[in-house]
Amino acid sequence: MRWSKAHLFTLKDAPNDAEIPSHKLMSRAGMIKKVGPGLYTYGNLALRSIRKLERIIREELNKRGAQEVLMPMVQPAELWQETNRWKEMGDGLLKFKNRNGHDFCLGATHEEVITDYVRNDIKSYRDLPANLYQIQTKYRDEIRPRFGLMRGREFIMKDAYSFDADEKGALINYDLMYDAYKAIFTRLGLDFRIVEADAGNIGGSKTHEFQVLAEAGEDHLMVCDTCDFAANVEVAPAKSVSSPKMATTKPPLLPMEAFETKGLKSIGTLSKSLGIPENQLVKTMFFSMNEGADPADKSVKPVAVCLAGDDEVNPVKLKNALGMSNPPLMLTDQEVKDATGAWPGSCGPVGLKFPVYIDTAIQHFSNFVVGANKDAEHFRNVNFDRDFKATKSADLRLAKTGMACPTCAKVGRTGAYKSFRGIEVGHVFYLGTKYSKAMHATYLTAEGTPTPIEMGCYGIGVSRTVQAAIEQSHDADGIVWPHGIAPFDVHIAVLDPDQEEVRQSAEVLYRDLESHGFDVLLDDRSERAGVKFKDADLLGMPVRVNIGARGLKEGIVELVTRKTKTVDKVKAEEATEKIAALFKAIRSGKNA
Amino acid sequence: MRWSKAHLFTLKDAPNDAEIPSHKLMSRAGMIKKVGPGLYTYGNLALRSIRKLERIIREELNKRGAQEVLMPMVQPAELWQETNRWKEMGDGLLKFKNRNGHDFCLGATHEEVITDYVRNDIKSYRDLPANLYQIQTKYRDEIRPRFGLMRGREFIMKDAYSFDADEKGALINYDLMYDAYKAIFTRLGLDFRIVEADAGNIGGSKTHEFQVLAEAGEDHLMVCDTCDFAANVEVAPAKSVSSPKMATTKPPLLPMEAFETKGLKSIGTLSKSLGIPENQLVKTMFFSMNEGADPADKSVKPVAVCLAGDDEVNPVKLKNALGMSNPPLMLTDQEVKDATGAWPGSCGPVGLKFPVYIDTAIQHFSNFVVGANKDAEHFRNVNFDRDFKATKSADLRLAKTGMACPTCAKVGRTGAYKSFRGIEVGHVFYLGTKYSKAMHATYLTAEGTPTPIEMGCYGIGVSRTVQAAIEQSHDADGIVWPHGIAPFDVHIAVLDPDQEEVRQSAEVLYRDLESHGFDVLLDDRSERAGVKFKDADLLGMPVRVNIGARGLKEGIVELVTRKTKTVDKVKAEEATEKIAALFKAIRSGKNA
Repeated sequence: MRWSKAHLFTLKDAPNDAEIPSHKLMSRAGMIKKVGPGLYTYGNLALRSIRKLERIIREELNKRGAQEVLMPMVQPAELWQETNRWKEMGDGLLKFKNRNGHDFCLGATHEEVITDYVRNDIKSYRDLPANLYQIQTKYRDEIRPRFGLMRGREFIMKDAYSFDADEKGALINYDLMYDAYKAIFTRLGLDFRIVEADAGNIGGSKTHEFQVLAEAGEDHLMVCDTCDFAANVEVAPAKSVSSPKMATTKPPLLPMEAFETKGLKSIGTLSKSLGIPENQLVKTMFFSMNEGADPADKSVKPVAVCLAGDDEVNPVKLKNALGMSNPPLMLTDQEVKDATGAWPGSCGPVGLKFPVYIDTAIQHFSNFVVGANKDAEHFRNVNFDRDFKATKSADLRLAKTGMACPTCAKVGRTGAYKSFRGIEVGHVFYLGTKYSKAMHATYLTAEGTPTPIEMGCYGIGVSRTVQAAIEQSHDADGIVWPHGIAPFDVHIAVLDPDQEEVRQSAEVLYRDLESHGFDVLLDDRSERAGVKFKDADLLGMPVRVNIGARGLKEGIVELVTRKTKTVDKVKAEEATEKIAALFKAIRSGKNA
Repeated sequence: MRWSKAHLFTLKDAPNDAEIPSHKLMSRAGMIKKVGPGLYTYGNLALRSIRKLERIIREELNKRGAQEVLMPMVQPAELWQETNRWKEMGDGLLKFKNRNGHDFCLGATHEEVITDYVRNDIKSYRDLPANLYQIQTKYRDEIRPRFGLMRGREFIMKDAYSFDADEKGALINYDLMYDAYKAIFTRLGLDFRIVEADAGNIGGSKTHEFQVLAEAGEDHLMVCDTCDFAANVEVAPAKSVSSPKMATTKPPLLPMEAFETKGLKSIGTLSKSLGIPENQLVKTMFFSMNEGADPADKSVKPVAVCLAGDDEVNPVKLKNALGMSNPPLMLTDQEVKDATGAWPGSCGPVGLKFPVYIDTAIQHFSNFVVGANKDAEHFRNVNFDRDFKATKSADLRLAKTGMACPTCAKVGRTGAYKSFRGIEVGHVFYLGTKYSKAMHATYLTAEGTPTPIEMGCYGIGVSRTVQAAIEQSHDADGIVWPHGIAPFDVHIAVLDPDQEEVRQSAEVLYRDLESHGFDVLLDDRSERAGVKFKDADLLGMPVRVNIGARGLKEGIVELVTRKTKTVDKVKAEEATEKIAALFKAIRSGKNA
């Protein structure tokens, strides 16, 4: 592409609402332009990256027998009513009536449509397995879209759906997609982790997330420093490496007694005042188990959660322990007062008329301190069973750096968690029969028995991955494209565009590189060298070629590797060959 | 693709709502499946055709300097309010509020979004020209979607927009796109005509439509039998080849008189009763000039149109003669009665208090018969000027087969219209400054004067073109794909799949053809030969190969050309070479 003929305008400053580096850089590089909140026009450069990613996705999926289809974005309500998700999905699913007064939504996901698509086709076990995917625009009505393409409203996604006769088959398809995703993100040149994750309310029971590591990531990951275990903090088991928080040999149980704790409402102040370390105090949190399935029922169904003073409740673990579909809401201060008789800060598990869940980290505690459910009072020497009964003991806390890796622990190794931030770019789900049962998508077994189809679903955030790549790979000057999705491979900076000889040489190299299969951006604008270098650094193509009058006098052009900023002076006529060699190194990871 | 591994199910019967052959065939071939009215899932085969078409479009547009971008489908109301189309577009533009109560629509077209996109980038004449396009999903809320993808609600479209400093530049871009479209539809192997057309309310002043000829087409075309003139009937000039309908030497004007015409309400009965040919009678039609710009103003603003008894009013020509944005509505019987004093059938131009437009075909009439604006009465010996004044005389009638081609007439040739039905698959519009003025998209001239950008817009109905190709090219047995967008080039029918040798040979040929760049569908299912032949005819790939045990015994396979059903017996080891030769012939048009 010749820049002089292209619609490509770089900006000095990013728009005010761009908070993270990748959003700023994509805006400044003219890759995206805001049309409305969470709505963007993709410029030609962004589209080139997206298309390269799409091609890689197609190659890896087709290779594994998946077949591409394309489903509509506008979907009739009737399909979503079959699975009850018309109600369950909440306001993120954008609903509207068309001119004839019929209900539709904009597709945020396509489980219902694809299940409808196959349910008439698949009649017998002979028609299975199947794996269908699409690359398509989706819409989620985010309340507060932010971070550019990272949390937009309209976005491009690849979603695949597998169909099998039984769980065994479904897990084979699951593994195939897992492998495909690994291959895809590896080919892109991204630093990513595959983490265990929570299946959420999509209906699954086994799931992995593909997370691109980046500081601005919204997800918190626990990655073992020794083995390849990795999990989203939502589900990462929390297990102290070192000694338990309190001795396991039980001391004698002392008599429980109340004492005044005026002004000591936080674990911090209580710890200071009593001289007991925070991790040996017990705090009690309150949540509601009312799922809101019946919108008319606004009642609070309280549950108490006790955990060590220095731990935090993990809402996803709590959700799963309670068997709920979504993380439970915390009670308001007033609701706590109504439920316990005291304001938060003086509440505890003793005497409650509703369930008390305790975190495993405190299950060996004895003679501990808790709120007395009377303002400005606590109990000391509280003990399990004698003073209150725990409904259930479970791992309900957030994992932290330094905790033991469960995989290592099993084999006696001492691997420990390191904490990372990640951007979720892909996920694989084993769905089971949630959708096929609700929508009567059955097949006949060899014995002629109608049986619900086993399903899986598999997503890649296409537009999000492009931005995640930039979020992971940039420097102070601009983008540093991973080779797999750089809009162009080579950026030729024509330093003296007013000189015929320089223009000619650039043109020859441009054509030669393109004929060798490279995508080339030729900066043939009438701009100073300084402007061109700045723009080249901003746009971040893997290799830049500087062609100027001074160099050409000696038959020399400069090759600049964007990532390392290494400069190689090479003979002009050998430039293509040298660039090919550079890319060979970059693609093999030696220079990327 | 191996059919045994594919999600591909053909149907014996088309769904009940499929009225035209292409809709039936696409349904039966598993190419489309209805999700809701006007909403379809594209199966893998349909998507292959679409992708081939998209690739051809990209190649031809990129070659001419157009650049691809991608705009959102969900668009904020504010942009459409700038041009007032938020109101003007009517109910075809689907509008909705998002969860925050803001107004949005689903993109039916993107003039506003693209104008917004460029208006901040393009600062000076140096930044022009530009031509940006996208291939994207659009939505129009058709009241009664029908004919499958032909008149669907959600559809894939390529839309391009050009930006120039002046009209001259804009027309250069117009011609470039015109050429690109010609190249695209030619490469597809379609029989199409480029016709003059009405610019509609999109704002343009010059436009051509690209029409694929097919009986089920919704457009009516007039094509010269001698030169290459072609026009949509909406705008085709209507000019009799032979003698004018009445002598041009004026006979003496006779006195006008009323006479009773009880029961003679139609031109037919009047003609019979009076013994005057229909083409020498004058009929009068009534329309309202109220555009509805002010929704509160429901008043009728009547206009009368007089034309020969055997001619029909052309609503588009009338719209243009009246300077309206949309074709005017006909008055109801009651409105006619209110406006003229008589029920339809007895109305005429004499004594009316509102404008009377006359068609040029009657402008030389004298002593003619018209309704008397009194029930069951007509006037005879009516004459222009003496008995009523025509506000304007213009070509207001529909052209017909046999009328004179205007291009031929100019040079004294006798070319005449032939009538065709067409499916509009592309259009090019010169827009002028309608959008740039409304949205303040200006550039600075060399003299520093802010000037509105000249625009053009150019569309191709991608999904519609695929169906149009089938509508144009099919036979009693199924689809006959034009080579450019056949989902597969070659269809291998494995006739004895239970025999190892046959399977092996088919596999060898399959791989060999793919390695030569052919897209191949391998029918390796355990089905009888008859089923496979039927399916192959239905799916309609250009070349079929029959591989069976009997032929292989003699080292022979059969090549069947879908269009001609010609069968060539060739040596198995020469099959690829022979197929390549067949395609060379097909692509050069010798066998297509």
